[in-house]
Amino acid sequence: MGGRSGQKAVAPACRFPEARRPGGNAGGALLGPCQTSGVADLELILASGSPRRRELLRRVGVHPRVEPAAVDETPLSSESAGDYVERLAQAKAMAALSPTRVVLAADTTVALDGVILGKPADRDEARAMLRSLAARSHQVLTGIAVAVVGTDGDAVVHSALDVTEVVVGEITEERLAWYIDSGDADDKAGAYGLQGAAGLFADRIEGSANGVIGLSLALVDRLFAAHGLDLLDFRSPAPIDPVETIAARALRHVTRPPGRDEPVVQWAGPADLAADFARTIGLEITDDEPPAKPGDLVDAANLVVRRSVQTNHPYFLNQNYAGADPLAVVGDWLGAALNTTNATFEVAPVFTMIERALLAKMARLVGFPESGDHPAGLMCAGASLAQLHALQLARHRLQPDLVTAGSDGRRLRILVSDSGHYAAEKIAAVMGLGRASVVSVPTDAAGVMDVDALDECLSDEPEVLAVIATAGTTVTAAFDPIDAIADRCEEHGIWLHVDAAYGGAALLSPMERHRLSGIERADSVVWNLHKMAGLTQQCTALLVREPERLLTTFATGADYLFQPDKANADLDAGDRSLQCGRRVDALKAWLTWKSRGDVGMAARIDHAVALADHARRRVAERDDVAFIVAGDFTNVCLTWVPPGLRPFDLTSLDDAQHAALHTVAPAAKAAMQEEGSALIGYQPVHGINCFRLIFMNPAVTLDDVEILLELITRHSEAAWRSSISSEPLREPTPLA
Amino acid sequence: MGGRSGQKAVAPACRFPEARRPGGNAGGALLGPCQTSGVADLELILASGSPRRRELLRRVGVHPRVEPAAVDETPLSSESAGDYVERLAQAKAMAALSPTRVVLAADTTVALDGVILGKPADRDEARAMLRSLAARSHQVLTGIAVAVVGTDGDAVVHSALDVTEVVVGEITEERLAWYIDSGDADDKAGAYGLQGAAGLFADRIEGSANGVIGLSLALVDRLFAAHGLDLLDFRSPAPIDPVETIAARALRHVTRPPGRDEPVVQWAGPADLAADFARTIGLEITDDEPPAKPGDLVDAANLVVRRSVQTNHPYFLNQNYAGADPLAVVGDWLGAALNTTNATFEVAPVFTMIERALLAKMARLVGFPESGDHPAGLMCAGASLAQLHALQLARHRLQPDLVTAGSDGRRLRILVSDSGHYAAEKIAAVMGLGRASVVSVPTDAAGVMDVDALDECLSDEPEVLAVIATAGTTVTAAFDPIDAIADRCEEHGIWLHVDAAYGGAALLSPMERHRLSGIERADSVVWNLHKMAGLTQQCTALLVREPERLLTTFATGADYLFQPDKANADLDAGDRSLQCGRRVDALKAWLTWKSRGDVGMAARIDHAVALADHARRRVAERDDVAFIVAGDFTNVCLTWVPPGLRPFDLTSLDDAQHAALHTVAPAAKAAMQEEGSALIGYQPVHGINCFRLIFMNPAVTLDDVEILLELITRHSEAAWRSSISSEPLREPTPLA
Repeated sequence: MGGRSGQKAVAPACRFPEARRPGGNAGGALLGPCQTSGVADLELILASGSPRRRELLRRVGVHPRVEPAAVDETPLSSESAGDYVERLAQAKAMAALSPTRVVLAADTTVALDGVILGKPADRDEARAMLRSLAARSHQVLTGIAVAVVGTDGDAVVHSALDVTEVVVGEITEERLAWYIDSGDADDKAGAYGLQGAAGLFADRIEGSANGVIGLSLALVDRLFAAHGLDLLDFRSPAPIDPVETIAARALRHVTRPPGRDEPVVQWAGPADLAADFARTIGLEITDDEPPAKPGDLVDAANLVVRRSVQTNHPYFLNQNYAGADPLAVVGDWLGAALNTTNATFEVAPVFTMIERALLAKMARLVGFPESGDHPAGLMCAGASLAQLHALQLARHRLQPDLVTAGSDGRRLRILVSDSGHYAAEKIAAVMGLGRASVVSVPTDAAGVMDVDALDECLSDEPEVLAVIATAGTTVTAAFDPIDAIADRCEEHGIWLHVDAAYGGAALLSPMERHRLSGIERADSVVWNLHKMAGLTQQCTALLVREPERLLTTFATGADYLFQPDKANADLDAGDRSLQCGRRVDALKAWLTWKSRGDVGMAARIDHAVALADHARRRVAERDDVAFIVAGDFTNVCLTWVPPGLRPFDLTSLDDAQHAALHTVAPAAKAAMQEEGSALIGYQPVHGINCFRLIFMNPAVTLDDVEILLELITRHSEAAWRSSISSEPLREPTPLA
Repeated sequence: MGGRSGQKAVAPACRFPEARRPGGNAGGALLGPCQTSGVADLELILASGSPRRRELLRRVGVHPRVEPAAVDETPLSSESAGDYVERLAQAKAMAALSPTRVVLAADTTVALDGVILGKPADRDEARAMLRSLAARSHQVLTGIAVAVVGTDGDAVVHSALDVTEVVVGEITEERLAWYIDSGDADDKAGAYGLQGAAGLFADRIEGSANGVIGLSLALVDRLFAAHGLDLLDFRSPAPIDPVETIAARALRHVTRPPGRDEPVVQWAGPADLAADFARTIGLEITDDEPPAKPGDLVDAANLVVRRSVQTNHPYFLNQNYAGADPLAVVGDWLGAALNTTNATFEVAPVFTMIERALLAKMARLVGFPESGDHPAGLMCAGASLAQLHALQLARHRLQPDLVTAGSDGRRLRILVSDSGHYAAEKIAAVMGLGRASVVSVPTDAAGVMDVDALDECLSDEPEVLAVIATAGTTVTAAFDPIDAIADRCEEHGIWLHVDAAYGGAALLSPMERHRLSGIERADSVVWNLHKMAGLTQQCTALLVREPERLLTTFATGADYLFQPDKANADLDAGDRSLQCGRRVDALKAWLTWKSRGDVGMAARIDHAVALADHARRRVAERDDVAFIVAGDFTNVCLTWVPPGLRPFDLTSLDDAQHAALHTVAPAAKAAMQEEGSALIGYQPVHGINCFRLIFMNPAVTLDDVEILLELITRHSEAAWRSSISSEPLREPTPLA
């Protein structure tokens, strides 16, 4: 072996008068073997576009600049295959040479009985070539050349020939047809690639393992040595592409979400976070912020991931969103990559259509009539903004001149249950109605609006702008009786808005949609797909029974944007909205829905409710935990019960017991947060902070329910004990 | 060659009484060579975790299920290396066998003089192993086994031994140390990997090219044949992971943006789009939508890309955003992957800090005083929403009780230039002020607010809520004189809001920031980073001189979310906003800013202005185009000039000429849209639709300016000719 690989040096006539002359090397000789000081001035060029050659060099830590050289590849008459590839390698190396460079070049061909095969012109020729190679051996020849400019200005090139014997087996006609059809033979010297499907018949070789797939590193090493250079001196850190690297990190977070044995959060306060980031690029953007090095940027992005709350962890139950669907995430990404706004058809043709399709589907689930030429509503940046739109629609119906003339100071009231979302007050303030215009309608113990109380409010209050029925309250996931509320609204001619931001998801499940019975009678509905349905922040639909109202209420017809004379201007969605630019949120929802189908959309909801039902059963069975209210749908509100208070009876607590129990959940939650074991929200219900288990992540299992209950009881008990021992002054009442 | 590879069949005693019995094959014999009908029932299992083996099979179109089998790997006493790997391969194949499966297994070891080397226990052993391999040859042995259950229920395994001779060269102590330190030797049989950095010294082989890196496909093929099976019958379409595939497509769109020879848009109207999507999964989400096949989903995503407007194309100049920074896109992605909301510190610790850092930097560029414990403002979903916040802050300062009590019907006015953004009217309507409350202050011909006219307005109008100074108008990018306006606001005690949605970017450039002189005197500023600064939709900052006002104006203190007893509740940003859930938009901006540094942020702006300056020079030099207004900063407003109207004088046009010229830009734009060559917006200025060149994409060059002007003139001329010829009834006035 080795007899068939040769090596020779040539010194072509080229001269580079401006040759590099390293300081300590005044003589005209080539750099000596140890003169690595000059290497720092030399850039390594790979004069070949082959990704495999680059990859092989990468494996020894060498990352050359790639500059494929184009040279005349016509063989000379009576030139041997070996001479041919070696000459081409030399020519390519010389073509890219300059005094500050070391150029590595290579050229490969396949030869049968000394005849160069080259690349087949078409598949017929490819077929013929392969037939000629079958059941015998042939040669793969690679010329390798390394060129530098000596200190005297002369170009010096050393080259070598690498010859590998390849034995091809029999190739049946069937295999041949299949291989040719696969396209693998196209554009390959000898009409096959050893590492491709041709491995079925071209298997055995004698020669360089790396050479046959691109480049013998051993030969390259020797050629460098011939120049007095060490290949390994050209190592450098792998170049980092922060765009590719951060994208890969983000994708990994989604496709391989954190497991149960990993922390939900690696908790750090503001000072710790600042210190963490100070070790990379710092949190602050300084007054003369320098461009970050790519590696530092990647470190910082990794730190962002590490220090962020893992909302796709099975034990993240802190909010009414969790476990976003990986497809929803990449749908979001696709929208961001295409970076446009859903304001006009001309810049968002596809997204305009997709938004309409999504809204139409959602409106049908609500039970609204067909919306005709109008989209059935609007995607908005969050439910607060969507509800602002809804209430403005209501006001416009009541006071059509108000959009132009403004409020005349008339008192209007918004009725919403005392368990409804706080957004109503914020919106009322912004609309100039004032928070006082929001009237809290009492609820029953479970958080459901009391319709008798609503009747009282309706007779007591001055003019009512809208009644907001809540479908899925934030704490107990209670559903107001929409049908009964719709009766009242119909009777009084009041706008009925349904805040289904959370509970709208129940419409996706044939088993659960009864909870929203009557929603089809609403005037407007807000429904967040980024909550239970598993989309990413944000994905909010405002659905309107009479969607043309969006135009009559909001349109201003700005002529610089909604030019009536451009194509398909009637489809522009932007003038139906307070927002001008809008992200293309519909895309991710559309893709996700298409992916899961209706059945899959329902399954996510049914799974969550099944878990909550199971959790409610388990809480009822145990005596160390108890409901404050049982919670409905996906939510379960519970407290740990100190031993002395078992069996638990909320009504029998005295004030001190009440107060003591109130402090347990915050302390227990903080401990879990510190430990990273789980993130579970708590909320005051009937004056006691209680944990809200809220299910939606499809990765959560029945076993997890048990684990979560254990976590809650363990940390609650510890919090309770520690509060007793550490705060003797605030001594809790003896508990039994 | 080939003499060192053997093959033998064994039939272990295992029996599978429940063996598969293909319909037409009642006998107990193995399937015959052509009995591929049974293959459909058989699943191919690869009982090896090696990604390289899976990859080799993938190359012949075979995608096995991967189920690494764990077996006892202790060599038997006096077992030869070949027997050892073949026995292990058989055992692994048998371990994963069931009647419905074909199991392929392999095991590899390295042997020196018949002694198995195995994996080194530590680096010392690795070093010793490599020393023993140097300057001689050794063997790499792979046992391969294929097992099936025959129709009689007996397990049948065929196996083969693949032996490759490897020649290792001299290994210097320096190379040895380097290789061991690289970690490449760890956990590898024989302490090296032929395809890794060891290629420097372990180069020449005699044996199977694929075998030495994992699996000889030729041998696998023969083993299948021994079972009467054809390996290629197990081919299947490559499994498609839509998440990975769509993510890769989105990334490619960003890292390899469309070139000049590709279309900006492949224009299609609604019906064509619907037809396009009907060929994949359809646009509509039907009433019983089935789950889409992964391949169809990917097709649909590709179609979304293909049919979308390529806003990162150099010839997309239709909007005030273009050419988003790839890093901004992946910053957006990272935020979406981490899917949380910036409402509370506990679910967004890192993002809370990053948002504060970003806002602080922007506020310093504005020149606002330090904001102390408060964040300097708020990231909002778009400028309209941000401006709504600003005007509500203004109203709250004027009427502190209004947040609670609501409007008393008092007339308030908002003053904004007649070139200002239409959002002011929408916002006024929503706030209950009415559109009539927005007073248009006249501008000069360039679109700059006339301060004398402002003075008149201030003396004429009833109570003024706010003056909005526009920094960078939508059409001409005009900057109102903020300092002069601030003087008036100061004098009258009026809230000064600066709408710097577009022009705020000038603050990034030391050369351009003079345009916003006086902005430090504003009470509030809105600045979109998703416009000129190259972030993705949306990235809007609301900056407030007295940021504590955000709390006093907006906070409601909802106790289920902003629990005062949890950790770091004082950092919760959500209660300063009308929005509850907010995307973590600050992340992408922070990453991008860190990446570019201040210098890079400035460079993008300076580049855009230089292009616009160049375009203005070129328009002035040519007679076939003319300014309607020259435009400022990044914007140039021009019309093509019909030959008869050259040199162009706007004031000399008669009504018919005016009307005729007005129709040219829409027609020319539609033609470019149709052709896909460019997307350039037009807007009516002084009653004539004129093209607005708007520069911001850093990929645009000076040469592109020429190309864009050529496109405009060519298509305008064609539109003009066609309007003359096709509309004889609307005969334009002869033009000279």
